[in-house]
This record gives sequence, structure tokens and C-alpha cells, in this order.
Amino acid sequence: MTSRRFNSTDPDLDQLYHDLSEQQLQPLWEMRGLLTPTPKVRSVPHRWSAKELRSLGERAGELVPIDRGGDRRVLACANPGLDGAPYAASTLWAAVQFLGAHEVAPAHRHTPAALRFVLEGEGVWTLVDGDPLAMSAGDLILTPSWRFHEHHNSTEQPMLWMDVLDLPVVAALEAVFFEEGPTEEVERLTAPVSRSERHYGGAGLLPPPGQRAQPRHSPLLAYRWAETDRALDRRLEVTGADAATMTYVDPTRGTDVMPTMRCEAHRVRAGTRSPRSRQTGSRVATVFRGSGAAVVGDQRFDLAPGDIIAIPSWTSWQLEAHDQLDMFSTSDAPVLDALGLYREEECP
Amino acid sequence: MTSRRFNSTDPDLDQLYHDLSEQQLQPLWEMRGLLTPTPKVRSVPHRWSAKELRSLGERAGELVPIDRGGDRRVLACANPGLDGAPYAASTLWAAVQFLGAHEVAPAHRHTPAALRFVLEGEGVWTLVDGDPLAMSAGDLILTPSWRFHEHHNSTEQPMLWMDVLDLPVVAALEAVFFEEGPTEEVERLTAPVSRSERHYGGAGLLPPPGQRAQPRHSPLLAYRWAETDRALDRRLEVTGADAATMTYVDPTRGTDVMPTMRCEAHRVRAGTRSPRSRQTGSRVATVFRGSGAAVVGDQRFDLAPGDIIAIPSWTSWQLEAHDQLDMFSTSDAPVLDALGLYREEECP
Amino acid sequence: MTSRRFNSTDPDLDQLYHDLSEQQLQPLWEMRGLLTPTPKVRSVPHRWSAKELRSLGERAGELVPIDRGGDRRVLACANPGLDGAPYAASTLWAAVQFLGAHEVAPAHRHTPAALRFVLEGEGVWTLVDGDPLAMSAGDLILTPSWRFHEHHNSTEQPMLWMDVLDLPVVAALEAVFFEEGPTEEVERLTAPVSRSERHYGGAGLLPPPGQRAQPRHSPLLAYRWAETDRALDRRLEVTGADAATMTYVDPTRGTDVMPTMRCEAHRVRAGTRSPRSRQTGSRVATVFRGSGAAVVGDQRFDLAPGDIIAIPSWTSWQLEAHDQLDMFSTSDAPVLDALGLYREEECP
Amino acid sequence: MTSRRFNSTDPDLDQLYHDLSEQQLQPLWEMRGLLTPTPKVRSVPHRWSAKELRSLGERAGELVPIDRGGDRRVLACANPGLDGAPYAASTLWAAVQFLGAHEVAPAHRHTPAALRFVLEGEGVWTLVDGDPLAMSAGDLILTPSWRFHEHHNSTEQPMLWMDVLDLPVVAALEAVFFEEGPTEEVERLTAPVSRSERHYGGAGLLPPPGQRAQPRHSPLLAYRWAETDRALDRRLEVTGADAATMTYVDPTRGTDVMPTMRCEAHRVRAGTRSPRSRQTGSRVATVFRGSGAAVVGDQRFDLAPGDIIAIPSWTSWQLEAHDQLDMFSTSDAPVLDALGLYREEECP
Repeated sequence: MTSRRFNSTDPDLDQLYHDLSEQQLQPLWEMRGLLTPTPKVRSVPHRWSAKELRSLGERAGELVPIDRGGDRRVLACANPGLDGAPYAASTLWAAVQFLGAHEVAPAHRHTPAALRFVLEGEGVWTLVDGDPLAMSAGDLILTPSWRFHEHHNSTEQPMLWMDVLDLPVVAALEAVFFEEGPTEEVERLTAPVSRSERHYGGAGLLPPPGQRAQPRHSPLLAYRWAETDRALDRRLEVTGADAATMTYVDPTRGTDVMPTMRCEAHRVRAGTRSPRSRQTGSRVATVFRGSGAAVVGDQRFDLAPGDIIAIPSWTSWQLEAHDQLDMFSTSDAPVLDALGLYREEECP
Repeated sequence: MTSRRFNSTDPDLDQLYHDLSEQQLQPLWEMRGLLTPTPKVRSVPHRWSAKELRSLGERAGELVPIDRGGDRRVLACANPGLDGAPYAASTLWAAVQFLGAHEVAPAHRHTPAALRFVLEGEGVWTLVDGDPLAMSAGDLILTPSWRFHEHHNSTEQPMLWMDVLDLPVVAALEAVFFEEGPTEEVERLTAPVSRSERHYGGAGLLPPPGQRAQPRHSPLLAYRWAETDRALDRRLEVTGADAATMTYVDPTRGTDVMPTMRCEAHRVRAGTRSPRSRQTGSRVATVFRGSGAAVVGDQRFDLAPGDIIAIPSWTSWQLEAHDQLDMFSTSDAPVLDALGLYREEECP
Repeated sequence: MTSRRFNSTDPDLDQLYHDLSEQQLQPLWEMRGLLTPTPKVRSVPHRWSAKELRSLGERAGELVPIDRGGDRRVLACANPGLDGAPYAASTLWAAVQFLGAHEVAPAHRHTPAALRFVLEGEGVWTLVDGDPLAMSAGDLILTPSWRFHEHHNSTEQPMLWMDVLDLPVVAALEAVFFEEGPTEEVERLTAPVSRSERHYGGAGLLPPPGQRAQPRHSPLLAYRWAETDRALDRRLEVTGADAATMTYVDPTRGTDVMPTMRCEAHRVRAGTRSPRSRQTGSRVATVFRGSGAAVVGDQRFDLAPGDIIAIPSWTSWQLEAHDQLDMFSTSDAPVLDALGLYREEECP
Repeated sequence: MTSRRFNSTDPDLDQLYHDLSEQQLQPLWEMRGLLTPTPKVRSVPHRWSAKELRSLGERAGELVPIDRGGDRRVLACANPGLDGAPYAASTLWAAVQFLGAHEVAPAHRHTPAALRFVLEGEGVWTLVDGDPLAMSAGDLILTPSWRFHEHHNSTEQPMLWMDVLDLPVVAALEAVFFEEGPTEEVERLTAPVSRSERHYGGAGLLPPPGQRAQPRHSPLLAYRWAETDRALDRRLEVTGADAATMTYVDPTRGTDVMPTMRCEAHRVRAGTRSPRSRQTGSRVATVFRGSGAAVVGDQRFDLAPGDIIAIPSWTSWQLEAHDQLDMFSTSDAPVLDALGLYREEECP
């Protein structure tokens, strides 16, 4: 039981501080930095290089088996500002997951929500409560809070994707629950189109109101790159701007796909740049296609496909495209928005 | 100024009834049929034959010009139960509209909301507040409340589609407003894809929250048959049922496309039938493809493409498919739902 | 089966009109008045005098018994513009109900929603699904859609109140259902405070979220005059205006008390007047206390306590107070609002 | 820049771990305790004694002035489980604030939201954006996110209340903003009833929909003990239970008073106890009247008026009343609820 002691050169005050400490109390007037004019941000801008992620992932694939004792072969991005905590940004976990040929990552579920963005390859399946979701390059796959999920690779090739979780938020709220799935041999289900997509994947069409599932997250669990690609193109056409952002949404409500994470696809036309802006809340992003650079705060990172970057809270950022640049990002904006704490501003 | 007089053989009562009438009052205890065990329904089941609609439409095309004095060449379905009122069902206007080669139906707007379901053909454009929406067979086109809209036919062929309006509801609420558009020559805009579809047509993707239009209706104004066709197929696959219904929705909220009308696409597999059910509220429907029959209350109507049927409130209905049957329907379900008056039941 | 026939002096057109009529079709271009620049309003401004209502109510009390054959002793206000229909305005039923000493109006329920505003007296109880609600002067009592309700007068004095129902709307939507209550002798329950008020009557306090009823209407069923009086006073104080309006709300959502009717209390300071405005939708109002006048459209009605007035759609209205004037009104604004048809404007 | 290094006795693995560390990556399979079966909770059950709080507050009053350099004379409860962090529980700040005779705590605003629960006394005013809110024993006063607020004591007596803030959550989300108010001499406004209460304090009555403020928090800023007392009494009457809880709500929406904190009043009848339950999320509570005990997890705390207790996440708790026990509590339930992380269960 720790009790923090303040000190004073005034003996009466010092005695008061001693007595406060005895009672597990602290004097507000001696504290600094509790209420700062702008946010005190712990994470720093950072880039994890795709080349290193891939090479280290492959080495892990050779050295580390997947089994009950070590469910997932995952390399967690650890932001240098977070004192060794395994988080890519203050409120977001980001990692690359490496699944070898014919490997199976067994079923479990947890209250932290996860999403997977596939950087390359195909032929891996994520089962969410038994619904098989094919994973191919550019796809976004949701494994929402407390849904059983497992992955299996039915090909001869290893595969690598980015995981993002809201784990830091759920841990800070002390609401982490975890459960392993049934231990019997998993059935390696596949299907050309998931149930989730057959019910909820139509643009502008849904099952009748009384027949819709009403979970706290999108009942559509897979978002395919072809659709994202087309939506970005059309958005650029209709706005005439240099850069477009589209938000992935729950088709039954138009809200963010999960209550804790906003997913967005960004496209910047070759030779142009996106507006420079900043928001409260953390963001992690990965390059899907193209090349260019990201200016985050006062740092500049060259970008290649598969690179992961961390954009801390209230830190300005801007994308520059050499070739047309396509980027996927996840932020905790829905959390800040739900709590009335979201702020955004353009930066000069 | 009419004043209804009740009568009684009791002279005191009769005098009271006389005095009530003088004061514009009526005795509840003498009224019958105000509060009935189940709804008193005025419309009757009816079918308007596609063959007649087309032939009469063509004759009207020859005889009746379109101009400011007669904005639209429209044949209104008049339900035989409604004493000559020009409504297909108690709360819905339905009609076929005939637009000749190179004709233009000039711009206007009104608080009653309208929708257009295209039965055949292509090459006609509906402009909604200047956004050109191509019209092709199977498409649903919205012209929501108080939006300027006009139609122009850029082809050599006349074209025919079904209009549905919530006019009876808006008139009963005494909230009809109407305004003609600018009188200058309309610009005959076309575009391969409407602005509405470029912004809002992606499945599971929307512009960022702060950049979305927030009208009282779907900002997506055109729903294409290819998408509807695919959604019905996938729904049949995933449910394994004989019949599927999909609801057209506002992609920003998952709600009905307009606050007064629910639009639905129905598909019944060849040789099977849909469940028999009834709902409060009126419905009009039209056959898009296939053949079969509709049993509405105790009547049976054979169905061919282009036929329009009226399904009155609280009247059971069921579809039978010979070939695979595709039907489009509109109901006032959102009105009943918003007011807490929607009831639905399966019928044995 | 009626079929409306249009005529033309052009023989070809006339033949077309004949053939359309045969097919239950009507030519839009021959219709007038369907889409009017502003609403076509059927009801007219009208006042029913309290003096007459009371005197005729008393005579009915002597002549007409209450029993199963004639559930309620009600005098319905019949707007002179509605061709004898028993509605006070196009979309609202209003009436006075007269309950004699020791009489009981037995239980029934119906989908049309009702409310009671008590003009004078006390000692009558309305039971809503068995919850006894005391009725005293100035109180608003709700009997929402499809809730069993009955009234019993436990005093030696007859009592009179105003009923308002959304019956015209529910009838137009063909969604009227009605059911009598159990025929056994009703239990004449009373209670100093209703269950509804004990659960939901606290200002700014509710049962925990998981323990709240979630009907489609306010779970608070009685609104007491003392609270209304205080709220009007405070509103006048804080705005400094001559007139105040407060809206009765569902305390669990802040919405209108029932999905079809908005209830409002109005107070105009002695010697002043309220702003002149008009809205889409109908309104009926009754004077609770004070005297003055209402100018409705181009008519002027002197006002005394108990008078009922009808304010038609899109018709300007203004209150003038001699003494401080307190008025209760009900409108169909929630219906128009839900359907995107509500308009309001100040009138010069 | 810290980089956490994992180790292995397998030299290949150890080299991998070294290389991961170089790249700011960490191997998930070596981490323990990230995804725990039930929440890992850092705060511990604790009680701060009213007697000590009052005596230490008075000593601080003598020794510590209030001025710009030290805005508030506040003793922060520091939970012994939190390693010296000044938080009463993992996600809640709780403190006692001591304001001497005629002192003024000057205006500032911050994104963390605050509330004040008055334990004893009267005659202090909190101004929120210039609206003067009287503070008396048992009252709840809100100073929501980013509203200027100040306190002034117009009496000869010092006064003491409990502050609760969502600071740990806002800090974890890196969204703290702070701003001092205008430096000119504050006007020491008072008013018998605040503007906030005059507009929004009526039970079941609100200004018309178009005239309501729509902040992200309750526009009603003061909740008076008399109303709370009555609501608790009525709730006990109508449920017949031993214990009652009422939730303070935003009267315009029925939601929690602020997006981050749920406020509740609890009453336990003399000689009985409340149900034993646990929830995800933290709670702090203070005794207003009565005596008894709280059993939190496996600890038991005797309770007297003014005691503050911390109830950690997913820790069972139960109240026992000797005399009738009235308690006020604040939890982060709205945060957990908004994010889909709220769980609750009865404990045997």
C-alpha cells in the first residue's frame, strides 16, 4: 500500500502533508500537470517498417509454434513513449500477426474488440462465431467484443496481417474478460461468401427491420477491398479534391463498425497531399498501396506498403503521395465522440 | 356549415339532440362504428393489368401533351373501394407515368414524397435538385419531400414507370405544399453515376461523420436492380427459405428510405409461395419479373410483369410463383411504426 | 364499386376517359387541387362555449345512463367544416365527458390514444391498467394507445372533463382496434399517489436504466396542475416574455407524452398577448383559468374557462389575456414531425 | 526512448527478442496477463473517514490560501492500490473541497467533467457559465465538461463538499484541455433559483422542442435534496423493497447527467441491507445521512455521514443500514455502457 508524501519547508504545512499521507489524501495545490492547457500525450510519432515486420514475422514463424500455450504469433508494436507498454499508441494496440502454412490459431473470445487489415495474400479464414470470413489483401475483418474467433490458413504460404485492438481502453476501464473456445478439433470452415455478407453486404438493402440482428457492433464483419477501392474513387470524383477519406460503417445504423474504433480508408492522388489536421485521440495507420510520406507532428516518415505508423493525440498529421497512396487507419474517435471529448482542427 | 342531427323517439332526448346539433356537438352514445374491434378498411384488393396500363398509357401519349398546364402524363390507380378518390389504397397514391420520346416533365416540388420504380426501358433521367439519376428497368428512384425534380427522356422510345406517393397521408394531415421550379429551359443533365450514388452508394462505407448530409430521407436517391437482384439471391441462399424480402434503407441510418414509405423487394422461388401474413397499413406492389399469383384477402389475382396490386390494411396476402417471381412493394409501415400503430401477424 | 368518369369534348379523349374509368384509372392532368401551393384545410376555426357544454352535459347526465350499451357519456365537438364528422379538427377528436355521482365508466382499450384534461372538480379516478390516477382541476391524465382504462366517480357531485383523441389519424391509417375490459364488477381502486407517479414523477430522477418500463408512451400518466403552474411561472421569470409555453414530456426520453399528440400549457400575462404564429397540423385548446380572446385566422373568440377552440392547420393564432390566461392545448405536431411535415412560422 | 527486451534461454529466440526490441516490437506469446479471464483491478476497496476529512480540511483552510497559484483547496482521495496516483478509484477522481468564509474559488474550465455533492451547510454558490447555483446539504451540482465555473462562499462559515471528476478517463484518452476564466473581479451572483432550474427543473415539463438547449450534458445543473428524498421514499413505497436506487438524469433525454458519470442516490431502510452485486467500472460513494456499513469485496467498512468509499471494478458490494442509510454514488457506468463493456451481476 503506497502513500504519496508531499513536502513543505513550512513545518505546519509539512506536518499537514504528513497527516494527509497517513490518510491516503493528497493536496491538489501541490500537484502540477493535472489540468494542462492542451493534452499531455505519452505516445510519440513512430513508424514500424514493413520490411522489418515481415522479416521478423518470418523468423518468428520458424521459431515459435502456435498452440494453446501461445495462442497467437503476434508482434506487438510498442510505442517508444509508453515506457515499454506493448501499445502502438496510448489507446490502441497494433501488431502484425503471422500465420504459417496450414496453421490454425484456435478459438477464443475477449471483451477487447479486434480488427484485422490484410496487407497481402489470400487463403486465410477467420471464423467469427462460426461464420467463415475469407481474408484477402485490402480486406477489413472485424472480430468484435466477446465474439469467438479463430484463424486458419488453408494454403502453402504463410500470411501476415495487421491486428488493431482497443485493449488499452478496455484495460484502463478494468473490463477485460477472456475465454477460450471449445478444445475439440476446430472445423476448418470456408465459404465463398460469409453469412454476415449475405445478410448485410448489400448496398442500401437490409433484411426487414424485425429480422435484423442488433449487436453492439456492425453485423457486417467483412469489408472487401474492391468495394473500398470503388468508394474512394467515386468520392474523389464527386468532390474533386486531392484526397478522400471514407469511413467503414455498420450498415444497419450508419455508425462506426464497433463502439470503440473508427476505421477509415484514405486515398491521396499522386503528387498531392491531404489536408493537415489534428484530432483528440490516438490513431494507427498502415499503408496498403502506393508510396509517399507522412508528416506527424514535426517528424517525417517515408511510407511503403505495409508500414505502420502511430499518430498520437492532438498531433497534426498529413499524407503526401508520390504514387497514389492508399492507407487504412483506425482511431479511438468513437470513444472520444461518445464521451463528448472529440475535437478536431485544421492545421495551417 | 353542416351540423349533424341525431334523432330519438324520446322527446326529451330528441330535444337534447336538437340542442346539441345547434352547438355543433354530437352524442357519442348514438354513434356506431367509431371504435371497431378490428380496422374498418375502405380500399379493396385490386389488380391493375399491365397490358391495359401500357395500352392506355400509349393512347394518352398520343392525345395529351406535357406542358405547364398539365405537368405530368400520369394514370392514377383509383381503388374501387374509395368512392372515386384517385388513390390505389387508402394511404397510397400509385400510378403509371408515361414519358414520350424527347419529352421533358418540368421541375416542381411538393411535400408529398414520391418514388419511381422502373418497369422497363432505359434512357430517362430524373433530376433531383439538379442531380441526374438514370432510370433503368428494376431501379428505384426517390424524389423525397420538397425536393425539386423533373424527368427527361433522351431517347426515341417512350418510357413507362410506376409512381408511388404518400399523398393521401399528407393531404389528411393538411400539410401539402407545392411549388413550380424555375421556368427557364431546363438543362438536360446526365451523368454516368449520380452524385448521390458517388457519395452514398458504397456498401458499408460512408463519408466521414462530419461530412454527411443529414436530410430527413435517404441521401442515396437511386437503388439499382443489379444490387437488389444480388441481395435477394444472397438472402435466399443464407436463409434457405422459399421467399425473401429485402428492405431498401437509408445507408446513413439503416432506416426506411423516406419517413412515410417503406420500400421492399420480394423474391419467391419458382413453384413455391411466400408466407401468408397481414399488417396494419396499406401496400401497393408491382411485378417486376416472373409470373404467378397473389392471394389478397379472399381474392386471387394472376400476376404478370407490370401488374399493380393493392393490398389493403389488415388484409392477408401471399404470393405464389410459377416462374421465379420478383415484386417491388411500397407500404406506409414507417408511418404506423412511428406512431406505435404497426401490427403484423402470420395467417394460417 | 364506384368508378369516377372524366369527360372531354374531344371525342378521342372522351373515349380514353371512358376506357380509363373502366380500368379504375384516372387522368392526373384533369384533376384539380391535388397539389396545392399551401394546405387545403377542411376544419374551420371554432369555439364551443363552456356554458353550453356544461349545461348540455348536465342534461345528458339526467337523460342518458352509462352502461355497456353506451360506455361513455360524451359530447363530441363536431367542427362545422367537416361535413358532420364528429371531429373537433381534421385530425383530433375533442369532447367533454360527463360522469355523474357514483357512476362508473367501465374498462376498455383501443389503439387510438386519449388524454383527459380536468376543467373543474376532483374525486374522480381513472384506472389505467389498474393504476388509479386521481383527477383534479388542471391535471392532465393519459390513457395511451391500447391500455385498459376506466373512470369512477366516488363523490356526490358530477364531474366534467375534456377528452382529446387521435382517432381521426388512427382511423385514416385503418389501424383502429378495440376491446372491452373484463365484465366483472370493477374494483374501485384509489391511491393517494399513482404507481406511475411514484416511479416516474420525480424531477430529474428516474429508476436505474435497467429498471425502467419502455412503452411507446410516457410511463408517467398523470401531470399535476401544481407542477404545471410552477413551471409556467418559472419560465416567464427566466425569459422575461409576456407569454410562456411548456411542453408535457415523457420523463424517460424528453419526447412528447404520446407518439401522436403534443400537449402544451400556455400562460399569457394579464394585458398582453402571445406571439402570432401558425403550424402545419391541427390543434384543440381549452381555457383553464383567466379570460381573454383567441384570434384564429380572421376570427376572434372571447374566451372563458372551459371554452374549447379548434385551430386548423396552417392557420395563424394568437392569444390575448385580460386576466392572466392559462390554456391547455393538444396538437398532432408529433405526427407531422415524425413524418418530416412539420412547418412553423411567425406571422406578422 | 525505452524499449522492452524479452529474454529466452534458446539463443535463436533470444536473438529474435533482441532484434524485436531494436524495432520497438514485443512478442505477444511471452506476455502474461494481457487478456485475463476477469478484469485485473488496480484500485482496492477503501474508506476515507469523514472525521479526518473534515479536520484535515479545516487545517488546510487555515494554512493554504486560495489564489491563482492554487485555484482550489482540495484534498484528493488517493486509492492505496494506485501507486500514489491521486485517484479515488481507477477511473474516478474524488476529493473534498474546503471553501472558507467569504472565499472565492475563481473561474476556470476544463474538459474533465466535475460534480459536487454537498455534505453539509449552505450559502455557497457555484456559478456555471454565469448561472448561480445555490449549494445546500444533499444537493448535487454539475459543472460539466468545458463550462466555466467558480465557487463563492457568502457566509461566515467554511463549507465542505465532495468533488468527483472523470479526470482519469479524460487523461487516459489524452483529451485534457484547461483554461482560466477572465481575471477581473468575479461578480458574486446569487439567485433564489438558477436559470437552469427555471428552464429545466419541472417534473414532466420542458420548454417546447425548438427552444431547448442541446448540450452533451444535462441542461439541468442542480438537483435538490428535497426532490431526491421524495423520489427515494416513493420508490421504496411502490416497490416494497428494502433498498431503493434512483438515477439522476438529463430531463431532456432521460440519460445520465453527463456522458462520463452516472449519479445515483441510494436509500436502505433501517435494519435491512441492499442486494449484493457487482459491475464493471469504478464507483465512489459518500454517506449523506444515517449509519451502517458497506461490505466491499471481502472488506467491511463502518459508515458515518461524510465518509467516502471506493468500490473497484467487478468487486461485489452491499450496504447495511442501522438507521436509515442515504448514500450518493458516482460511477463510470455511462462510459462502459457506451462502449459495450458494461456487465452487472447479482452476487450470492
